[in-house]
Amino acid sequence: MAVLRVDPVDKKGVTMALEFLHVKEEDAVRVNHERLHDFITRLFASFALPENEAKMVADVLVYADLKGIDSHGVSNAIQMIYVPRLREGLINPQPKPSIVHETATTALVDGDGGMGMVPGHFAMNLAIQKAKEYGTAFVTVRNSRHFGAAGYYACMALPHDMIGWSMTNTGPIVLPTFGRQPMLGTNPIAVVAPTKEEPPFIMDFATSTVAFQKIAIAGIVGAPIPTGWAADQEGRPTTDPKVARESRALLPLGGTRESGSHKGYSLAVLVDVLCGVLSGAGYSAALDGQAGHFFGAMRIDAFRPADEFKAMMDEMIRALRNSEKAVGEERIYVAGEPDFETEQERRAHGIPLHKDVVAFLRRTAEEQKVAFTLTDPE
Amino acid sequence: MAVLRVDPVDKKGVTMALEFLHVKEEDAVRVNHERLHDFITRLFASFALPENEAKMVADVLVYADLKGIDSHGVSNAIQMIYVPRLREGLINPQPKPSIVHETATTALVDGDGGMGMVPGHFAMNLAIQKAKEYGTAFVTVRNSRHFGAAGYYACMALPHDMIGWSMTNTGPIVLPTFGRQPMLGTNPIAVVAPTKEEPPFIMDFATSTVAFQKIAIAGIVGAPIPTGWAADQEGRPTTDPKVARESRALLPLGGTRESGSHKGYSLAVLVDVLCGVLSGAGYSAALDGQAGHFFGAMRIDAFRPADEFKAMMDEMIRALRNSEKAVGEERIYVAGEPDFETEQERRAHGIPLHKDVVAFLRRTAEEQKVAFTLTDPE
Repeated sequence: MAVLRVDPVDKKGVTMALEFLHVKEEDAVRVNHERLHDFITRLFASFALPENEAKMVADVLVYADLKGIDSHGVSNAIQMIYVPRLREGLINPQPKPSIVHETATTALVDGDGGMGMVPGHFAMNLAIQKAKEYGTAFVTVRNSRHFGAAGYYACMALPHDMIGWSMTNTGPIVLPTFGRQPMLGTNPIAVVAPTKEEPPFIMDFATSTVAFQKIAIAGIVGAPIPTGWAADQEGRPTTDPKVARESRALLPLGGTRESGSHKGYSLAVLVDVLCGVLSGAGYSAALDGQAGHFFGAMRIDAFRPADEFKAMMDEMIRALRNSEKAVGEERIYVAGEPDFETEQERRAHGIPLHKDVVAFLRRTAEEQKVAFTLTDPE
Repeated sequence: MAVLRVDPVDKKGVTMALEFLHVKEEDAVRVNHERLHDFITRLFASFALPENEAKMVADVLVYADLKGIDSHGVSNAIQMIYVPRLREGLINPQPKPSIVHETATTALVDGDGGMGMVPGHFAMNLAIQKAKEYGTAFVTVRNSRHFGAAGYYACMALPHDMIGWSMTNTGPIVLPTFGRQPMLGTNPIAVVAPTKEEPPFIMDFATSTVAFQKIAIAGIVGAPIPTGWAADQEGRPTTDPKVARESRALLPLGGTRESGSHKGYSLAVLVDVLCGVLSGAGYSAALDGQAGHFFGAMRIDAFRPADEFKAMMDEMIRALRNSEKAVGEERIYVAGEPDFETEQERRAHGIPLHKDVVAFLRRTAEEQKVAFTLTDPE
């Protein structure tokens, strides 16, 4: 994975290591987001996706890249997940998502084994339509695949003045509290809410303490990881990133029992209940290659006038931002704010892709007989 | 608070300290739960609550005591919260909860300043009724007061084969990541789901790393607290429980930024969005004595047959329980299981109340001219 090719120049600890997650400016090729979107659409169309569905894939990937969720953007996801799985036939390029069962405010959707973005859009749009009519609606999805950044779908609710919900389960890589066998996915949860003038509230996180990628990077840099990120093969917390890379055993949010790991573990199980058990996709440890999702939409004005809600959201965000800082800290962030600022910068100056990622995309374009338009001809 | 009167006999660290949270058998008076329920009902009726509403209060308090959630049971809640606030006129003993706005699947309820249990029952029952008809429903509540253990209301959904949701915001005692001013409540989240033969899944936790009570106890015992529980007055994590008792600054789940405190912080804000902003009660730091709640009910068979769902819940719970244990650990729990076992034991052998709590209740009964029936006449 290209973004992992970093130099072990510094071992000042994990904070330093984490800086390597970001592509260094001298290794970066800045690509205009519209140009990237256009290229990604054509690239996925070359894998037999209908053009409007290839566009959905590009929507989700470029969203992640704009927001700075680089682990779910073009760099990582295409090379590690989508291209190999499409080539191996593990993903249906032309799925027909269908409603297995529905009521006024609910639905169970079968994703027909497609790129998760296709049933993802289908199901979230369904939730929004039903919520328009009845106030709130929730849709669970089975037989889907990796759908990208969870927050994308939740954000589809924002222009409708709705609170948006999105979750997915994933293959097992996280330990239950007191366990040593990975039984849970990173099982992310996203919930978003609209605001008036402030950036929208966008909560979107894995229920593990950290993503596996951070451990991989710490291992390359040789930096110790904090207790609570990962365990060794016996289930004991480890600070050695090499041990953690071997075990592939992340710890749930909270890390250890005395620091509340039973809470992160329970959140991961909750995601399995809503995405896996409610849909029939199966819980993380029984997924067998598929993924289950859960989406929801709640109309604000089904509770109180949207304008009043949004004004109070702004007030809360400002109160948090302006509250007293800890010694040595200059800013307090609210969920969604850092991503919002990254998006402004990247819309203006382009998305920084590692030059090796650009090379991979160029190669893939050649193999797929797709015009490579990310950079100007040399 | 009686349960805090423990002897500093051992300083082996926080694990030892936490054992003091539980009433020692030699200090305990075991009280039959039905007898306790009857007494608590009459006690609250003496504060001018209508009998059926006093019974609701007893339902919620005895639930917590049966489940082992002692911080929200009779010992702590009556002495520290309800009796003084009723006497000071901060709680309306005869509230008339009303629907301010509603749609097919939503409602905004005004709690009329009553004991939180009264609008709590009203709102959760409303959500269940609406979910019966339309599949899912959510109700937000403003102008309420402390409602006891969040999990109680979520569990009201279980006999209807529904997934239940319950949250509340509370006054500020938790720091935002990078902050030093408490801006968030402990803001608990409860979500529950029915099962077939296994104990139901009951997730119910504060979004802070720990409850303040644990820090108070560690202070009495003189045991250091783990990094990530609380901060000093400058916002720096502290391991000194005396410093933490002074600052009254808990850290959000995750503890520190590198261990994911931004996730616990975001969850606490989410609770404020749903309980405070959506209802108009206000966010934690602006609550001014009231509390906002959020309840939800989702009919399982609006998604898939309830029997299939419950069978898969059992399968998941058993898979987690039977997965490999970490070295030195003998059991893996699923949320709801320890509480279930505590409940079995306490139903059979009585609820252990500290003798000082029993003395307080006897005194209060005398003051209120209520027959004291918790223990046999001497």
